[in-house]
Amino acid sequence: MKKIVVALGGNALELENTKPSAEAQIEAAKKAAFCIVDIIEKGNTVIIVHGNGPQVGRILIQNEFAAKETPSMPFDVCGSMTQGMIGYHIQQTIQNELKKRGINKSVVTVVTQMVVDKNDDGFKNPTKPVGIYYTEDEAIVLQKEKNWVVKEDAGRGYRRVVASPNPIEIVELSSIDNLVKAGQIVICCGGGGIPVITNDNGDLEGVAAVIDKDKAAALTAKELNADELLILTAVDKVSINFRKPDQKDLDNITVEEAKVYIKEGHFAPGSMLPKIEAAMDFAESKAGRTSLIGSLDKAADAILGKNGTKISL
Amino acid sequence: MKKIVVALGGNALELENTKPSAEAQIEAAKKAAFCIVDIIEKGNTVIIVHGNGPQVGRILIQNEFAAKETPSMPFDVCGSMTQGMIGYHIQQTIQNELKKRGINKSVVTVVTQMVVDKNDDGFKNPTKPVGIYYTEDEAIVLQKEKNWVVKEDAGRGYRRVVASPNPIEIVELSSIDNLVKAGQIVICCGGGGIPVITNDNGDLEGVAAVIDKDKAAALTAKELNADELLILTAVDKVSINFRKPDQKDLDNITVEEAKVYIKEGHFAPGSMLPKIEAAMDFAESKAGRTSLIGSLDKAADAILGKNGTKISL
Repeated sequence: MKKIVVALGGNALELENTKPSAEAQIEAAKKAAFCIVDIIEKGNTVIIVHGNGPQVGRILIQNEFAAKETPSMPFDVCGSMTQGMIGYHIQQTIQNELKKRGINKSVVTVVTQMVVDKNDDGFKNPTKPVGIYYTEDEAIVLQKEKNWVVKEDAGRGYRRVVASPNPIEIVELSSIDNLVKAGQIVICCGGGGIPVITNDNGDLEGVAAVIDKDKAAALTAKELNADELLILTAVDKVSINFRKPDQKDLDNITVEEAKVYIKEGHFAPGSMLPKIEAAMDFAESKAGRTSLIGSLDKAADAILGKNGTKISL
Repeated sequence: MKKIVVALGGNALELENTKPSAEAQIEAAKKAAFCIVDIIEKGNTVIIVHGNGPQVGRILIQNEFAAKETPSMPFDVCGSMTQGMIGYHIQQTIQNELKKRGINKSVVTVVTQMVVDKNDDGFKNPTKPVGIYYTEDEAIVLQKEKNWVVKEDAGRGYRRVVASPNPIEIVELSSIDNLVKAGQIVICCGGGGIPVITNDNGDLEGVAAVIDKDKAAALTAKELNADELLILTAVDKVSINFRKPDQKDLDNITVEEAKVYIKEGHFAPGSMLPKIEAAMDFAESKAGRTSLIGSLDKAADAILGKNGTKISL
């Protein structure tokens, strides 16, 4: 009976090699729901934080294509739209799976704002590409007219880049906590949360930024005083010497060991590295807290200590 | 100290004669937030149900224009996106206004599914036009390929029509109730709720339909055992002989009087009539329940009995 924050990648909510229709998204959500209900069925309290990369990308495309007809929404607003859409699909499919198994529990999505520091270094040097590709000429216009930062992307054209600041405060935390304490399954901080800053008037204000959903999940787990943070990804376990002849899959590592592996360059930036860092962040925040990195398929096994990589103090 | 469900029109969340940019939407939300916080400041518990007509219309346009690039989302999914977007704007602006006034309360948007009856008469004869206009040729293709019902719309072209079934069950009711009882300001049932049916497998499944947000608000008010249902609209009071020389604005009417006025044809279908019907539905559901119809600007006065039209048993 643990309290577990599950971080589910936006890619896990897509079917591979399939047109990203709503039907395909629901199929993917059904699979995720099945695996997550396996964890719930064992009596655990589950909070779900999901990514939104592919989904927000498509909303940006839709905005762009209709820009002459109707104003494009800024990045924070597009993020809020994915929270509604993905939250709906996850809560519906989990609700259906719970009912099939005779489990009487409610599932709810909380639209969540995440405060970031307006002075975060990320804003000085935005690096996260979002949206469609532009020509150089278009890029110059966008920089001028919309004040975007646009960068050349590996020979494929120009793309907008936004900051990826650290999440520092979950605005709707008390609501989430109330729902968790009432025994509800809560979906929150979708896409890492809608990025907001506290502006000079003291008001919350949306900003263009991508918050790492694993970092957001680690913060959620800390704030809710969870026992475990389960980061789901495409592999069953974390490896050192990944995809080399001497690849070694890891069952248990300490935060100190993880630090050594990071120094040795075992984890790819933008891929496994941020997951390891989020896992370490939670594991070292308080004695007894454990992080797990594993695959969706083996999620329930990971919780039982039968699969995945465990990161602890 | 009353528990009040406020039904806020999607049009109240738009600025008149202004391009519907995110900035304009936030300005409109700020105005709504100011008026709603006036009610909260007096110690009342407020639950907000909002419309999404103009907003979902724009998402449909964006979907349509990018349809060759990325799959269009079905109507229920577009509705879920508006819940995320509008909920975000309302919760942020209310949160900011509360902070300005030194009120320590949390605001939260719950993504809400609304069960409708798959045998609802509305599905047999869909009447609610949604999305963009098509030519006759396009309409014929859409009817065949997407199984849409498409109708000619007053000489302006062809539009898809969807059902407007009655809301019968709020799937996330227990979550909403928990949050309200914990003293939170809850935004729910956006756009009338995401329409879902119970399919032949017993699963919840999204459908293309528009649920009247005032009906949804009346159901929310009944289920949460609210004291008042406040339906906000463009006029300060309900009138008989509306826009005629003998127009009479109404302060107080009984459900029986409302029935007579309806028979006499005083209320326009698709405009004031559904608001009156929702107001009557709540007022006659239990002794002591009162409905109010009024304008956003005078909302706080309406609660104090100083403005608006009161409908009671």
